Amino acid sequence: MDETKRYEQGWKRLQETNEPQARQLLDSLKDVAPDLGRYIVEFAYGDVLSRTGLDAKSRELVSIGILAALGNASPQLEMHIHSALNVGCTREEIVETMIQTAVYAGFPAALNGTAIVREVFLERERNGIRS
Amino acid sequence: MDETKRYEQGWKRLQETNEPQARQLLDSLKDVAPDLGRYIVEFAYGDVLSRTGLDAKSRELVSIGILAALGNASPQLEMHIHSALNVGCTREEIVETMIQTAVYAGFPAALNGTAIVREVFLERERNGIRS
Amino acid sequence: MDETKRYEQGWKRLQETNEPQARQLLDSLKDVAPDLGRYIVEFAYGDVLSRTGLDAKSRELVSIGILAALGNASPQLEMHIHSALNVGCTREEIVETMIQTAVYAGFPAALNGTAIVREVFLERERNGIRS
Amino acid sequence: MDETKRYEQGWKRLQETNEPQARQLLDSLKDVAPDLGRYIVEFAYGDVLSRTGLDAKSRELVSIGILAALGNASPQLEMHIHSALNVGCTREEIVETMIQTAVYAGFPAALNGTAIVREVFLERERNGIRS
Amino acid sequence: MDETKRYEQGWKRLQETNEPQARQLLDSLKDVAPDLGRYIVEFAYGDVLSRTGLDAKSRELVSIGILAALGNASPQLEMHIHSALNVGCTREEIVETMIQTAVYAGFPAALNGTAIVREVFLERERNGIRS
Amino acid sequence: MDETKRYEQGWKRLQETNEPQARQLLDSLKDVAPDLGRYIVEFAYGDVLSRTGLDAKSRELVSIGILAALGNASPQLEMHIHSALNVGCTREEIVETMIQTAVYAGFPAALNGTAIVREVFLERERNGIRS
Repeated sequence: MDETKRYEQGWKRLQETNEPQARQLLDSLKDVAPDLGRYIVEFAYGDVLSRTGLDAKSRELVSIGILAALGNASPQLEMHIHSALNVGCTREEIVETMIQTAVYAGFPAALNGTAIVREVFLERERNGIRS
Repeated sequence: MDETKRYEQGWKRLQETNEPQARQLLDSLKDVAPDLGRYIVEFAYGDVLSRTGLDAKSRELVSIGILAALGNASPQLEMHIHSALNVGCTREEIVETMIQTAVYAGFPAALNGTAIVREVFLERERNGIRS
Repeated sequence: MDETKRYEQGWKRLQETNEPQARQLLDSLKDVAPDLGRYIVEFAYGDVLSRTGLDAKSRELVSIGILAALGNASPQLEMHIHSALNVGCTREEIVETMIQTAVYAGFPAALNGTAIVREVFLERERNGIRS
Repeated sequence: MDETKRYEQGWKRLQETNEPQARQLLDSLKDVAPDLGRYIVEFAYGDVLSRTGLDAKSRELVSIGILAALGNASPQLEMHIHSALNVGCTREEIVETMIQTAVYAGFPAALNGTAIVREVFLERERNGIRS
Repeated sequence: MDETKRYEQGWKRLQETNEPQARQLLDSLKDVAPDLGRYIVEFAYGDVLSRTGLDAKSRELVSIGILAALGNASPQLEMHIHSALNVGCTREEIVETMIQTAVYAGFPAALNGTAIVREVFLERERNGIRS
Repeated sequence: MDETKRYEQGWKRLQETNEPQARQLLDSLKDVAPDLGRYIVEFAYGDVLSRTGLDAKSRELVSIGILAALGNASPQLEMHIHSALNVGCTREEIVETMIQTAVYAGFPAALNGTAIVREVFLERERNGIRS
């Protein structure tokens, strides 16, 4: 598989999960670090997130758990809460993932993650998105 | 629900996921911090990991992702790889979770997590455990 | 001790340390993750922070040190600086805890923690709180 | 070397790297934790960052990599991106350091670091600073 | 205060808290990074840990909480559990600090910290140290 | 550039920096997560570490700083201390990077990193490697 195909595959995966925020992210990188944007499409989405062996919903829940636990990845956590809902995760599953985070990474990580979950839920309601 | 019921529920959950390692953990806490052991049974397993709303397999994959990303929780990661396999996760799903970790927490976290995955797989083979 | 008693004990502890911010926190969780709020009252405050064996002032200083070192727990650090002052810690002890953080977690953690300490001190002065 | 000399040496080093932000930082500490400010001048800049054995540019690139990887040190990362440019690092070297961070600390750390790099570049352009 | 006095003050503080492990640490640095050892004596112990404004016991409990929360500082946590006991902290206070860590940094940090606490307690019993 | 070329480029970079440990790493991944090994060659070494814009020595020093600061990446830190020496960094530059780490990530990170530096230096002396 050559570079172009990896990019195409990654972009397809991004479109399936969260196209608007992905466009915004790549735009913000265009003038300062375009290759970092390219690696996100080719490697993160093209190579890894397109893999089979773990279904899309589990992949997003795992990502959300990791990002909440890291605790310093707010923009990415926000993006992946949207993605999780877009690929069919329920709100309940996302909230459960946050509660689970409290056990392994402590209450501050869970609380700060939940604050972002809440913002995303409210934003989607304002925009009339059902899931 | 009173304390005793929470302990019973937590213990039942621990038995379903990973009784031998749970016994070992509680034993090691008995003389130094027995209440910490009790909180693990009552709160972590009785309150949180017994919750519905996220199926057992997803819960374990999320835990594994978080623990690999934290990077300093080797004994707990080892325990939850066993638990994940015990509740029906496939080896492939566990490996995928590690590869996913590389994207969000970097290659060292993914590599050190994968080294523990490998040890658990080998240990289970030595002990004739199929999953 | 049953659930209700744990909640009562936790709520009592919260009232003694920081009722206004606790109310705000629980309110913000009510619509998205009320059980997470309940666990904070029952487990964090009812089970753990109500324990004897470590006096209230030491408990708060330890919490402040941990939260500053984690570096990604600003809202919680702010809350516990208030709590520390409310249970009788001096401003000097809080500042010393931040300086101590520099040794173990580096100057950025200490500096960002100190910026929050400063905001809390100023807020309390504005609100005429003496301690 | 006595205290005064260490302070002088540290202050000289700060002037060479980033005097305006250093003044702002020390000012913000003056009323709450002046000794923390003094330690930054004496120890961080006077003892460590004045050391020979690693040239000024490498020192700043290492600092930027560490601060981006820590992920919770935005004000310090911003300050050191300025410092790196002030001591002669190229924009390309700074961007490369961020891309490198993705490998070891994950894409969120690299992306959030790059967002700060971008702000600093834009600020310097607005202020007519060439490097 | 000149360098020599800072070193003397730091060494005095080290003797009061944990001389045998301090000697071992400085010895291990002698051939590779002696200046790092000197900074520990002069800055960490001479400047910071000798400060008044926070009593020795609180300082050690704060350090233990931070080190357990960081999760990747086992040798330092071990050293400071000894120091805490040497300056008069009770075993109970140390265990409470670990339990407290679970709330803010998660159960893995608390469990791995408690395993080190247990080892130190056993080692001191073997060596006939009462506290 | 297609996949094969990326792999070749990555492998060439690995050979220039640290072939024996790279082989060992890829071998250990072969049976459990061979794709993770492939991504290290293709993405980490082929895409990122082969980039121009930052010279090989600076790249290694940045990596060492990041890995020491993360604090939970001992095998990777060990590998990159070898790599740094192999591409021409001096022992002094590596030690300086560790001392620098103390400022931003705290003394425990610097001390534990220095312990690994010391082991690598001793191992190379035992094996008659001059640099």
